[in-house]
Amino acid sequence: MGLDVEALLEKAQQGDKRSTARLISGVEAGGEAAETVLSRLWPHTGRAKVIGITGPPGSGKSTMTDKLAKYWRAQGLRIGIVAIDPTSPFSGGAILGDRVRMSDLTLDAGVFVRSMGTRGQLGGLSSACVGAVNVLDACGCDLVIIETVGVGQSEIEVVNVADVVAVVTVPGLGDDVQAIKAGIFEIGDLFVVNKADRPGADRTASELRSMLSLEEDERKRRMPVLLVTAAQNEGIEKLCQTMERLFDSMQESGMIEQRRSARLRQELLTLIQDEFGRRVINPVLTSPAFQEDFDNFLARRENPYLWVGDMMNKITEGRLL
Amino acid sequence: MGLDVEALLEKAQQGDKRSTARLISGVEAGGEAAETVLSRLWPHTGRAKVIGITGPPGSGKSTMTDKLAKYWRAQGLRIGIVAIDPTSPFSGGAILGDRVRMSDLTLDAGVFVRSMGTRGQLGGLSSACVGAVNVLDACGCDLVIIETVGVGQSEIEVVNVADVVAVVTVPGLGDDVQAIKAGIFEIGDLFVVNKADRPGADRTASELRSMLSLEEDERKRRMPVLLVTAAQNEGIEKLCQTMERLFDSMQESGMIEQRRSARLRQELLTLIQDEFGRRVINPVLTSPAFQEDFDNFLARRENPYLWVGDMMNKITEGRLL
Repeated sequence: MGLDVEALLEKAQQGDKRSTARLISGVEAGGEAAETVLSRLWPHTGRAKVIGITGPPGSGKSTMTDKLAKYWRAQGLRIGIVAIDPTSPFSGGAILGDRVRMSDLTLDAGVFVRSMGTRGQLGGLSSACVGAVNVLDACGCDLVIIETVGVGQSEIEVVNVADVVAVVTVPGLGDDVQAIKAGIFEIGDLFVVNKADRPGADRTASELRSMLSLEEDERKRRMPVLLVTAAQNEGIEKLCQTMERLFDSMQESGMIEQRRSARLRQELLTLIQDEFGRRVINPVLTSPAFQEDFDNFLARRENPYLWVGDMMNKITEGRLL
Repeated sequence: MGLDVEALLEKAQQGDKRSTARLISGVEAGGEAAETVLSRLWPHTGRAKVIGITGPPGSGKSTMTDKLAKYWRAQGLRIGIVAIDPTSPFSGGAILGDRVRMSDLTLDAGVFVRSMGTRGQLGGLSSACVGAVNVLDACGCDLVIIETVGVGQSEIEVVNVADVVAVVTVPGLGDDVQAIKAGIFEIGDLFVVNKADRPGADRTASELRSMLSLEEDERKRRMPVLLVTAAQNEGIEKLCQTMERLFDSMQESGMIEQRRSARLRQELLTLIQDEFGRRVINPVLTSPAFQEDFDNFLARRENPYLWVGDMMNKITEGRLL
């Protein structure tokens, strides 16, 4: 790939968005090149606060992210946004890729917005997202917001890299959506009822509070529920301040460190598996000898489970490569 | 674990559901025990046809699965159903776990229904689902139906193990859902507009047809779009017959074999990574030496990317273990 990582980083830290974009693209490409970029950036990471925003489709996450970014921008912070969009299968790109609603933010030199499709990330969505967060962190963002629709396992994993996670809902969602949404409750640190000018907002909030009471007992801390009307900028300041206080108290109790440590552990596992895939599995699975074995598996003449055991023995005994 | 796999398999093949259930539980538990079960069952697999049903929440997938199962059951086939449900975060179990609507099916000795939560599968949802399909196949099911809500990356991967995939939709879904649903178009072999007695069904079907025309050009085959009202059993016979014909033509063109081969390759990759994790990564990551390295990573005194490279060198040179 031949990216001059140090030169790009220096320019990016001075606010050059094109350099930031090139570093993220390098990471998104996956493989050895991505590892080189991330390895070089590593000493510069660990300073940004990472906020995750998730919720069902139609809950107004993009608008809310937009308003949060503007609030913190006004406090003088540099902001990075990683927006995970459902991917269009036909174009291959992110459906909301141009993020029309954020266009005025992208004109601000202190805000960097990156959209990422849910599919087609070579090393997996989760690792592309962690990579982008690390790049933004190294490039000098004080705050990185990850925004993702909270409907699937991978999407939930993505938000797991955040220090503080806000789960957004709206009044009057159907039962079915409710059921799916349930899957994202346990990852939330605070909860937002958006579009609070709609009828039923108070009821949604109190339903949320009662659903959360069990979880609060278990975690031994309160999980705030806030009413917000993001489109009218109502409740945004309070939401931001609540997040800041939450971050501080989670840092004090050691929970932020604990979460970052879990994230790094997960990153390491992915790294090791990627390297193992590249250096060990791929050469094996593309060898002519394997093709013969594979045909025997398909025909049920040989057992792939036994074959894997044999191969692992060879690896651990240093006999394979 | 000490499961007597052969004894359980023999009973399961004779129609004993408890034995089938125990084999699936063994597989769901993941790890070495799961591999033992799957390895023993391997010679008995490869006969069942596997059908995937997916679509957005509220599209009536469960009702449809129920009717399909009844149709094929009436043809004398033995049926297995793997229903992937969104998991409740508080109970840890599948929200629709009891599958109330299928209760009359579960009384039928020739139908085996298994619900699986989207989370908490130790070896990952995808591998738990493949495992369950393999068990049902080995236990003598002629047909296995996988039903899953098509909203997330993992959920989509699950349906990828099927020979033939039906994507279900309904008239009048909102735009947001439409966007997510788009992500599942490319995995469909045929498309169903369910609840076709609702207004707008014909329009939904023709919208579908026009969305699919590009894809059809690329794949060089037609992708049927059918109108069904599953709750009234309308269109079910035609749907089943279309699926059967589709399976036959896909088998003739070699596509079924190609898909099963891709599935096995994926399974092998997962197997290898699991074994590698168990035998190599876990011992490393739980060693006291690693804890020191890890603290240095967190403090940015050492670089985890370089560390991974070193470790891989040791592995490939047989110096690690």
